[in-house]
Amino acid sequence: MTIDPAALVARPPIVSRQSVTQRDVMLYALGVGSDDLSFVYEENLQMLPTMATTLAYPGFVWKDFDLGADWKKVLHGETSIELHRTLPVEGELVGETTFGPFFDKGADKGTVAYQKREIRTADGELVATVRNSSFLRGDGGQGGSSEPQPKPRPIPDRAPDEVVTLTTSENQALIYRLSGDYNPLHIDPAVAQAGGFDRPILHGLATFGVAGRAVLAALCDNDAARVKRLDVRFASPVFPGETIRTEIWRESEGRAAYRSSVVERDLVVLNNGYVEYI
Amino acid sequence: MTIDPAALVARPPIVSRQSVTQRDVMLYALGVGSDDLSFVYEENLQMLPTMATTLAYPGFVWKDFDLGADWKKVLHGETSIELHRTLPVEGELVGETTFGPFFDKGADKGTVAYQKREIRTADGELVATVRNSSFLRGDGGQGGSSEPQPKPRPIPDRAPDEVVTLTTSENQALIYRLSGDYNPLHIDPAVAQAGGFDRPILHGLATFGVAGRAVLAALCDNDAARVKRLDVRFASPVFPGETIRTEIWRESEGRAAYRSSVVERDLVVLNNGYVEYI
Repeated sequence: MTIDPAALVARPPIVSRQSVTQRDVMLYALGVGSDDLSFVYEENLQMLPTMATTLAYPGFVWKDFDLGADWKKVLHGETSIELHRTLPVEGELVGETTFGPFFDKGADKGTVAYQKREIRTADGELVATVRNSSFLRGDGGQGGSSEPQPKPRPIPDRAPDEVVTLTTSENQALIYRLSGDYNPLHIDPAVAQAGGFDRPILHGLATFGVAGRAVLAALCDNDAARVKRLDVRFASPVFPGETIRTEIWRESEGRAAYRSSVVERDLVVLNNGYVEYI
Repeated sequence: MTIDPAALVARPPIVSRQSVTQRDVMLYALGVGSDDLSFVYEENLQMLPTMATTLAYPGFVWKDFDLGADWKKVLHGETSIELHRTLPVEGELVGETTFGPFFDKGADKGTVAYQKREIRTADGELVATVRNSSFLRGDGGQGGSSEPQPKPRPIPDRAPDEVVTLTTSENQALIYRLSGDYNPLHIDPAVAQAGGFDRPILHGLATFGVAGRAVLAALCDNDAARVKRLDVRFASPVFPGETIRTEIWRESEGRAAYRSSVVERDLVVLNNGYVEYI
């Protein structure tokens, strides 16, 4: 069994629903290491922009739905979030996930598959669009788009304009997973070792949340409503307890590039970051 | 307006309901500082015994119900939990809170009021009984029980048999409050200062949770089903980030006394602790 790109593009959306509570919003912020009262206290509570990645989450689609992919060989490549309005700190949300385009790298390599989730309020107002790319290492040679795959956003070849260093805690993944991604890779030492890691790794989207906090503080004075778009490419996993340094380059008005590294290992973990803000 | 002890004893129970999820169970454990997989991972998950204090929580009854008390002057005195069966890690629970006895200390001092919450499954099986005493400093001189108030459990006058030292994190109260006690005293610096504290204090029941972890590890090999009863008297608040040392004295078979102190200030914070276990 393998994927059928044309059928996946044509299939009806996967519909997912979530009743978001203020408690969920505060728990997410704690999961990405924030203790800023703007994000962890119900007085004047804001949702962190990167929480969009968890909203109306349909689950790990390659495993939880009958899509034909060899889900054990799937790697998460990139995430992009677009925020169309201020994120609501409570209420009903509906997600619709669709598939495509697919970029075939050949039978021996795999396929890069894009998914798009549009997240709306119960009234139908578009709140956020979340795009993810997955590298389906077991499903190459099935055909795909004739268009070229989008190139990663470049990082300027100069010193960054801003650098923000944030710590993660030893229990960071234990808190983060309560926002909905219960993959045992992030908690169970035996599963982590079977996956080739010495110990459980932090969720890539939790690292993205830490980088998002850095960008929000450096460029938007912690006003979540000012972030319009955040893109990132996952380069390498982080272990809970490590320190994440985010370098930021201001480009034109309201646009910036960013990249995040683990200080202890001097290793890039998030690359080709891009943000739009007002 | 003030309390009417006889009417409070006679009133129908306050009924409270909770649909407990495994996520709630894991979040509570993180809120009291545990990272033991037995309590934070859905594989073979156990509920920490002290979580009974949060189950089917009716709210701060002196404030949230029309009971006549001057709720701003209420202090939490003691808590006792009895566990009648293994605590369920998910499902519907129903609490029934009743009042009494009341011990009148005089118009210039106040009244010590006891409340009892019986917690049952949806099928009516008794799971736990939680007793709390409150010192109603603004409601003395209203009459009360003619019986003497129960005396605190004594602490042996000898060196402890076991000592367990556990840390708390700077964000401990931020996590703990998501288990249901959103009193701003534990997060808002302005509210803490108005209450006479330099900064927000940890919830007393979170400190109890840390002591409960110490007792569970030292006496019951972290097997939550072995704890049958845990009593405590609140002596002084803890600040998040402080280290809690719990001293334990084995008394007779299945019974022990305990006491907890903040290491940094060499100050007793929980006193007259008592545990029954198998």
